[in-house]
Amino acid sequence: MKIIEGGVTSPIGFKAADCAAGIKYQGRTDMAMVYSEVPCECAGTFTSNQVKAACVLWDQKIVNSGDKMQAVVVNSGIANACTGKEGFDACEATAKAVEKELSVPFNTVAVASTGVIGMQLPVDKLVAGVEAMSKTLSHDKEAGTKASQAIMTTDTINKEYAVTFEVSGKTVTVGGMSKGSGMIHPNMCTMLGFVTTDLAIDKKLMQEALSAVIKDTFNMITVDGDTSTNDTLLLMANGLAGNDVITEKGEDYDKFYEALFTVCRFLARRMAGDGEGASKLFEAKIVNAKSKDDARTLARAIVGSNLSKAAIFGCDANFGRFLCAMGYSGAEFDQNDVELFFESKAGKLQVFDHGNPLDFDEDFAVKIMKEDEVMVIADMHEGNEEATAFGCDLTYDYVKINADYRS
Amino acid sequence: MKIIEGGVTSPIGFKAADCAAGIKYQGRTDMAMVYSEVPCECAGTFTSNQVKAACVLWDQKIVNSGDKMQAVVVNSGIANACTGKEGFDACEATAKAVEKELSVPFNTVAVASTGVIGMQLPVDKLVAGVEAMSKTLSHDKEAGTKASQAIMTTDTINKEYAVTFEVSGKTVTVGGMSKGSGMIHPNMCTMLGFVTTDLAIDKKLMQEALSAVIKDTFNMITVDGDTSTNDTLLLMANGLAGNDVITEKGEDYDKFYEALFTVCRFLARRMAGDGEGASKLFEAKIVNAKSKDDARTLARAIVGSNLSKAAIFGCDANFGRFLCAMGYSGAEFDQNDVELFFESKAGKLQVFDHGNPLDFDEDFAVKIMKEDEVMVIADMHEGNEEATAFGCDLTYDYVKINADYRS
Repeated sequence: MKIIEGGVTSPIGFKAADCAAGIKYQGRTDMAMVYSEVPCECAGTFTSNQVKAACVLWDQKIVNSGDKMQAVVVNSGIANACTGKEGFDACEATAKAVEKELSVPFNTVAVASTGVIGMQLPVDKLVAGVEAMSKTLSHDKEAGTKASQAIMTTDTINKEYAVTFEVSGKTVTVGGMSKGSGMIHPNMCTMLGFVTTDLAIDKKLMQEALSAVIKDTFNMITVDGDTSTNDTLLLMANGLAGNDVITEKGEDYDKFYEALFTVCRFLARRMAGDGEGASKLFEAKIVNAKSKDDARTLARAIVGSNLSKAAIFGCDANFGRFLCAMGYSGAEFDQNDVELFFESKAGKLQVFDHGNPLDFDEDFAVKIMKEDEVMVIADMHEGNEEATAFGCDLTYDYVKINADYRS
Repeated sequence: MKIIEGGVTSPIGFKAADCAAGIKYQGRTDMAMVYSEVPCECAGTFTSNQVKAACVLWDQKIVNSGDKMQAVVVNSGIANACTGKEGFDACEATAKAVEKELSVPFNTVAVASTGVIGMQLPVDKLVAGVEAMSKTLSHDKEAGTKASQAIMTTDTINKEYAVTFEVSGKTVTVGGMSKGSGMIHPNMCTMLGFVTTDLAIDKKLMQEALSAVIKDTFNMITVDGDTSTNDTLLLMANGLAGNDVITEKGEDYDKFYEALFTVCRFLARRMAGDGEGASKLFEAKIVNAKSKDDARTLARAIVGSNLSKAAIFGCDANFGRFLCAMGYSGAEFDQNDVELFFESKAGKLQVFDHGNPLDFDEDFAVKIMKEDEVMVIADMHEGNEEATAFGCDLTYDYVKINADYRS
């Protein structure tokens, strides 16, 4: 597997476009489209929130029906959640505008939204955006990058990634983009993520791979514990790499799985480190846990704790907060088995040893915590499963951004 | 039932004291003692956190053993959590100091701690504190007030309350004090709460009442979603009111239940409104839910959401965040049944109606949200159960306080 520069337009046959539709933001792009020259097999995972955005319901219908998918239209101004029938009509109008412009059936056009909840989308602006983007679709790397920028809300950096690998003598590419920032505590997937590939693969296997991969990638992120109404991760495979279609598990499937995992993991970490107001990536790694579920639960509890996040922001090695979070996570363990460490580029430091606090070097602890990426490691000494969760610190800026988001 | 001025020393036979033991804070009191002239029946509820502080384990032993309880010693400097055997020894040393000074068996002395986790208590200072307080125990109202001040950490106001009622011709008093502020997301009880009464009542009934009362009082608070290692709520009944001992449910039990509920609810609301960094009390009331559990779950999810809390801070009527939180709470409902309102002293405003956002008066919404106590009401139209959760807004000060708590 090889990492390449690129994103959703890297696989053969995928194009992207963006535009400034003026849906909420002014002076920046706020719509993107991803389009495949031929219909794609598709897979998706969606928010577990009972209150699902209209676009989530729309996309679930496509993914679950067995229909192909050929395009995705995204806007980053209004979430189209809690919008009743009018919201669902806006999805259909968007898809029908694509049908009109690009002659693809409207029921192969996915839509995704992010932004304010409880506000109606201006359909005329959406349609005008589709018309404009249909004329500028491009396979260039830059088109993918600009699409990944157009879907940003409070994100400070765009997120895209691409890798290649070989299957039956053919080069296959997997590319992806995502946006995150706030209301990020995915449960079944992340805010908005789009992964494209030119691999030829059976739909069922694709969904199986995606559902497995998110467990240790997007589902291990938390920014603020708020599971959004709009979480959507879509995977489109158009088969243009020309490989023998993967129809069963084996070496080829494993290669694809690794590529998909790599792309999703990169995007997930990037989203965590760029959480709303975040000044750094905060990872929690659990090793030697009794079970994989326990490891994930413990890791997520640590990065999900407001107190732990505030301590990371303040470079305060207040390790009791991590143990406290582990303690209420729901996973069973004995604190007398636990060892706790801080680690970053600056070094590694043990602070807790089998039930007892250590008298550690506070200056060294601060040095470790001042880095852009800080990890807390808990060795449970109870088994051999591990998991890593991705989060960020809790800062003044998080409060600032969210105390007045709508205006 | 009558509300009176007072707290833990209001019931007959209860005394309190406080002192500046210099455990962590300088220039303020940081230890308190509550003492009954005669041994008490006791009940308690404790944190559900797997990582329990040494003092929690100590108190659970007393409450579960059927032993009487005659005194409680509290310090507000160090939590005595994650402290291994040395931490447990500190509990015993404290209790033995009380035995020496006041001639009560050490296994009737409860201890409670709040403060930094993962740091050892200075036993010499604790013992010196017990010696000093044993000499100044007083039944005065002021002694109770000063005890409630000594147990504060980042609290900005002390919390105490007292009520009286009649049982078999005798006046019975219930008084209580508590501290809250941060790491507040009680699960089985709250951070630290102490309730005293001169009622004569059977131990089993007392525990039953306490366990029921907390479900709609302390367990409905959340400040930051972090369930502490130290949550402890103790109820001591010394029987000195002289009433016929309550040994079964009935009118007298109901009167006690109401009094206990009133004291706990007051303390719980006070703790929520005085959450770390909070500028206001933020309540969520669910009405007409399918079940009591659903109502509690939905209410807690709203006040527990960082995004909702930040919106309350910013006086931003961003109601989609409340619906989003309800959606991921785990309770099942249909957003098309829901009506949503904001309410405070300034008035009441509907913002969401059976699945559809309303075009409401933003200026009036801001006016409502500017009050010190703001309530969000969700009418589920699915049954007739209700519940209210108590929280606070998420502010810059919360981040400030917790980014550097230890120093």
